[in-house]
Amino acid sequence: MANQEKVYDLVIVGAGPAGLSAAVNAAARNLDFVILGSDPRSPKLLQAPEINNYLGYVNISGKELSDKFFNHIQKLDIDYREQRVDNIYDQGDRFSLLMGDETITAHSLILAVGVSNEQTLPGEEELVGQGVSYCATCDGPLYRGKTVAGLVHTDEGVEDIIYLSDIAEQVYIVTDRELDDNIVKKVEIIDKEPVRVTGENKVEGLKFEDDSMIEVEGVFVFRRVTPPDKLMSGLETEDDHLKVNRSMATSKEGVFAAGDCTGFPYQIGKAAGEGQIAALSAASYIQKKR
Amino acid sequence: MANQEKVYDLVIVGAGPAGLSAAVNAAARNLDFVILGSDPRSPKLLQAPEINNYLGYVNISGKELSDKFFNHIQKLDIDYREQRVDNIYDQGDRFSLLMGDETITAHSLILAVGVSNEQTLPGEEELVGQGVSYCATCDGPLYRGKTVAGLVHTDEGVEDIIYLSDIAEQVYIVTDRELDDNIVKKVEIIDKEPVRVTGENKVEGLKFEDDSMIEVEGVFVFRRVTPPDKLMSGLETEDDHLKVNRSMATSKEGVFAAGDCTGFPYQIGKAAGEGQIAALSAASYIQKKR
Repeated sequence: MANQEKVYDLVIVGAGPAGLSAAVNAAARNLDFVILGSDPRSPKLLQAPEINNYLGYVNISGKELSDKFFNHIQKLDIDYREQRVDNIYDQGDRFSLLMGDETITAHSLILAVGVSNEQTLPGEEELVGQGVSYCATCDGPLYRGKTVAGLVHTDEGVEDIIYLSDIAEQVYIVTDRELDDNIVKKVEIIDKEPVRVTGENKVEGLKFEDDSMIEVEGVFVFRRVTPPDKLMSGLETEDDHLKVNRSMATSKEGVFAAGDCTGFPYQIGKAAGEGQIAALSAASYIQKKR
Repeated sequence: MANQEKVYDLVIVGAGPAGLSAAVNAAARNLDFVILGSDPRSPKLLQAPEINNYLGYVNISGKELSDKFFNHIQKLDIDYREQRVDNIYDQGDRFSLLMGDETITAHSLILAVGVSNEQTLPGEEELVGQGVSYCATCDGPLYRGKTVAGLVHTDEGVEDIIYLSDIAEQVYIVTDRELDDNIVKKVEIIDKEPVRVTGENKVEGLKFEDDSMIEVEGVFVFRRVTPPDKLMSGLETEDDHLKVNRSMATSKEGVFAAGDCTGFPYQIGKAAGEGQIAALSAASYIQKKR
């Protein structure tokens, strides 16, 4: 099957205002593309009680505006899929997006993944790839017979923990999700706030607010939003956001970005404007490649 | 009256999508501001038969979208005035905008003036301030008793030519505007395409497509859009557009820019997004000044 692999012109990761605006502009330029969103869609937008500063709509709720945006991509028959991306690999002349068991391949990318409200733990960033992981499918097999902890803020993360519990010797879980009995039997729930990932050159443990500690060799973190520089390696950041130029190009050729993940202000109009620029930049990149 | 002069927080120059988006965001931040537009408003937008790539509105005409935008600023009771800015002066701690006989003063500016479709003439840029002028009120008195030419693409420009005809010895006019008999008596109409402003360190003449020439000491140019770096001195440009950073700040402190005048792509969503960023940057600038 590998030789029949479809390669899209573009994949847009994220379906907030930035990703959706990128999509309607990619459609205008006749790109062969797909947009990947998560459920619930853009919670920050949905929760806004009243929006007055997106030009063209006055006194509109976040829910209504979100409906207008989704109606727009539906009217244009845009290929929208609810799928969470675990990891993105640079294959030289194309990019592969890993989503559970499935892979999508494209010549260019627009990262419109927003920002995470959840803070990074001290010690976490330093130990990425040395015990800290954001992808159970990718890194789970490394922890066969070992002890790991999962910090879980998503439902998909809960499923990943079930998967890990079949591989690892012991699994601790810290979560704000509901767990069913089936899972509870397989893991040890810790109802304390973690404050630090410990270890020098590899993960050795997880420390909690009460100064207690558990010894683990792996820490899997599942936040609603994976920081884009952790989704894909080799992307330069600046002040905790993806570094982009005025064409919304990141430091990696063929990879564009838009919306909150590129920096302040975190606003709908800014995000939509950047999504438009990113799509037109991607279109011009694809045209040159052909 | 001078000591009672009102100083606005902000003046937004231009009422296309960039200026209007800046206005709705300046309103959201409670700035004391005014937005200056021209008639007809944003012809490029009005003439678009069908727009599909401004997120939230699908299959809408430029006229309808323009109405939505204006409806938005009306609903928010924004101070919108149809006034053309002739010149902007940097007064150190504030900016003065000259409009005919009237002056408005503000602590910060957003330039959202779009781009001109009309080409600059060879020789024009080199001789700005040395005989080439964009403002009859400002520079007219320098040409008392002299011979000048006016290149006129606006109705206000026609009025400026009438004013000049009372000062100068002789006035030539090249125009695509209708002229009434009253003016025709005072000026000499030239029905040929100008191709170059001539002169070494000062204007000496105007050359036409048929290689004919007239001797003049001043050339007044009235285009629909005055390039922003000619509206105000000291603004850095890059590839024929205003140079801005990602906060939409120009090279001059307190002056922000948005929309087509900052560069490609010339698109509504990009312009609106930049207008939003510019307004929020201006708000934060004003807050620091207070």
